[in-house]
Amino acid sequence: MEVELKEVLNELESLKQSIADPSHRAPIDKLKLRVERLAYLGNYGPIRRSKVKDMSAEVVDSNPYSRLMALQRMGIVKNYESIREFSVAIVGIGGVGSVAAEMLTRCGIGRLLLYDYDKVELANMNRLFFRPEQVGMTKTDAAVQTLSDINPDVVLESYTMNITTVQGFDTFMSSLKNKSFRPNKEGSGVDLVLSCVDNYEARMAVNQACNELNQTWMESGVSEDAVSGHIQLLIPGETACFACAPPLVVASGVDERTLKREGVCAASLPTTMGYNSLKDFFPTMEMKPNTQCSNVACLERQKEFLHVKPARDAAARAKMEAEASSETESPLHLDNEWNISVVDESELDKVDVKSSDAPLPEGLIRELPSADEYQTLPAETPVSHVDDLEDLRKQLEALNSA
Amino acid sequence: MEVELKEVLNELESLKQSIADPSHRAPIDKLKLRVERLAYLGNYGPIRRSKVKDMSAEVVDSNPYSRLMALQRMGIVKNYESIREFSVAIVGIGGVGSVAAEMLTRCGIGRLLLYDYDKVELANMNRLFFRPEQVGMTKTDAAVQTLSDINPDVVLESYTMNITTVQGFDTFMSSLKNKSFRPNKEGSGVDLVLSCVDNYEARMAVNQACNELNQTWMESGVSEDAVSGHIQLLIPGETACFACAPPLVVASGVDERTLKREGVCAASLPTTMGYNSLKDFFPTMEMKPNTQCSNVACLERQKEFLHVKPARDAAARAKMEAEASSETESPLHLDNEWNISVVDESELDKVDVKSSDAPLPEGLIRELPSADEYQTLPAETPVSHVDDLEDLRKQLEALNSA
Repeated sequence: MEVELKEVLNELESLKQSIADPSHRAPIDKLKLRVERLAYLGNYGPIRRSKVKDMSAEVVDSNPYSRLMALQRMGIVKNYESIREFSVAIVGIGGVGSVAAEMLTRCGIGRLLLYDYDKVELANMNRLFFRPEQVGMTKTDAAVQTLSDINPDVVLESYTMNITTVQGFDTFMSSLKNKSFRPNKEGSGVDLVLSCVDNYEARMAVNQACNELNQTWMESGVSEDAVSGHIQLLIPGETACFACAPPLVVASGVDERTLKREGVCAASLPTTMGYNSLKDFFPTMEMKPNTQCSNVACLERQKEFLHVKPARDAAARAKMEAEASSETESPLHLDNEWNISVVDESELDKVDVKSSDAPLPEGLIRELPSADEYQTLPAETPVSHVDDLEDLRKQLEALNSA
Repeated sequence: MEVELKEVLNELESLKQSIADPSHRAPIDKLKLRVERLAYLGNYGPIRRSKVKDMSAEVVDSNPYSRLMALQRMGIVKNYESIREFSVAIVGIGGVGSVAAEMLTRCGIGRLLLYDYDKVELANMNRLFFRPEQVGMTKTDAAVQTLSDINPDVVLESYTMNITTVQGFDTFMSSLKNKSFRPNKEGSGVDLVLSCVDNYEARMAVNQACNELNQTWMESGVSEDAVSGHIQLLIPGETACFACAPPLVVASGVDERTLKREGVCAASLPTTMGYNSLKDFFPTMEMKPNTQCSNVACLERQKEFLHVKPARDAAARAKMEAEASSETESPLHLDNEWNISVVDESELDKVDVKSSDAPLPEGLIRELPSADEYQTLPAETPVSHVDDLEDLRKQLEALNSA
């Protein structure tokens, strides 16, 4: 569009030059200004909503945050507006990363850091977010275009690069460390890293960076046939890192690029969000860190975690007790003529993996339970804080006596 | 943009009229043509991808269906391209309906029928799909704009109206009956109706239409606090209809509009897809039709279902047996050096609601199990086809002897 408007401008100029009567030049100049303004608009996208200084809870159609601020009134969040202080880094702006970015943008997250080196193709149109008119743009540029139109309040940082190269990894690290958005934040410059990539090399790069920075992150993956997937929360030192129990392809040292075959691509659907959708089966489990992990930074974080855990557990328990004693039961609605009451679901347990009696070699953990096992598992009580502390006391005693 | 381009056109015309020298008219006419072309483009949106005649499985970046056709190679679907014969009606183009429409559009569904009477507001920007530049447009117009850009292969029908009015309901019914898209289709003109509305009056209207047309549909809902919801599949005569076990507000005959309070709105999040997200708790259950249902069309469908069920069950069993005997186990990948095998999850059961010993009044069914009950429920075997047939035989005998 801009190119064609510029051609119109050029033709107006030559028309102006060719006209002898100077009284006709003024209307042509006026026309040129108009067309220039159109070219400017075309360049800078459609008319956007203006930035919002403070989030308002006012229930009017023109308030983009009314439905989100309502979460506060409903008791779901305490201080919704604090979302504007948070930074999330999203690595891989494909089918998963782009939707995560859009959701966070619509929620009014403070700052998003977007990493991808790929371009938008028509072959990506089976997933949400990108539009055919963006084909040929880098995924980061296209994402910034769409996200800044949706919510200009979000600070967007775009990194068009591959984090698995030496230079890319350096830029990745320094962008995560940068604290100019919130100078007095503890730890790194971001609150969460979301890994939404499609290969293990990139996952290992994210793992390395997050272990070094002691940065909590989430890993996601979709199966080759598009109908199952996984989500994993990784807290360095506290849960298994990606190298603690590496996928077979990583552990065996095969170059995964040699596994890809000409003319074959993975399937994907707009709906895939991470579980076995054909069986509606989504098991949940905890993975403890591997004390023999090959990642040196992971071992350091594990050591740190063992030192701070007793104090953290005590503080968490004290807070929980304080909250329990101060809690007053005020109803959400003052009128309740049908005596509707909320069923307590707080006792719902996670399905724990039943450990077999056969011992496993050190550093290996049991795989996911199959749906068959899941079905026959007896409900187990969750691991209590007391058990954790007992374990820890024994470990510390062993360390002290060594 | 179009308005301003038209003004440019008008000014070019008056310039042309005011210029005495006719040799200057030709370049002005050429300019006018250029600007007209720009106005046309502006009117019809950005440059789109062209329509695709047949879906191709070719793995090239320019193929919008490569990742979807891969589902066929992976054995997930038998004939992906048959999706182009299907019609889906979506009632309510809000946070749920718009995303359902976008997913189906990206999958290459044959035809979408969209119903909504509302306009896009900035207050809707907390959900996916709509963009601030669409504020003020009807939701149906904005959806058609976005969806036709994403995939011009999909036939889009837009109904800007309220299906709960007498006239709106008539249009709704006749649009569902229309078979011009696939004249030899059995039953109604659509394959599925998705109810994505935010009030019970509209749900009852969809229920009425689907019962009358013997049309399978799905109902969805999100709680006022945005963190839980439900999805329900309704097959007239076979499962409970929406009036078989109506929500309390419907059963008590209160006008739900009187329940809404000034200055209060429901919360919503871009992520809500329908379950208790805070507890990751999503129970599944079957609801049989209520033989005392207040909906006359539902009772007719129940009667029809009882007549066709024995033949249907026998056909399904014969097909299953034929498939089991003809199935050959061919591996997806020819090479399997790590001996990776697929764990059989086919035995996974749905959680059945445990019926209490206390009898319930006729026409009432037990509520959802709480998360506590869920935890202590023993795994039950699924209802087998044989049991169903036994039940049915007894019912038919009772009918015949009456």
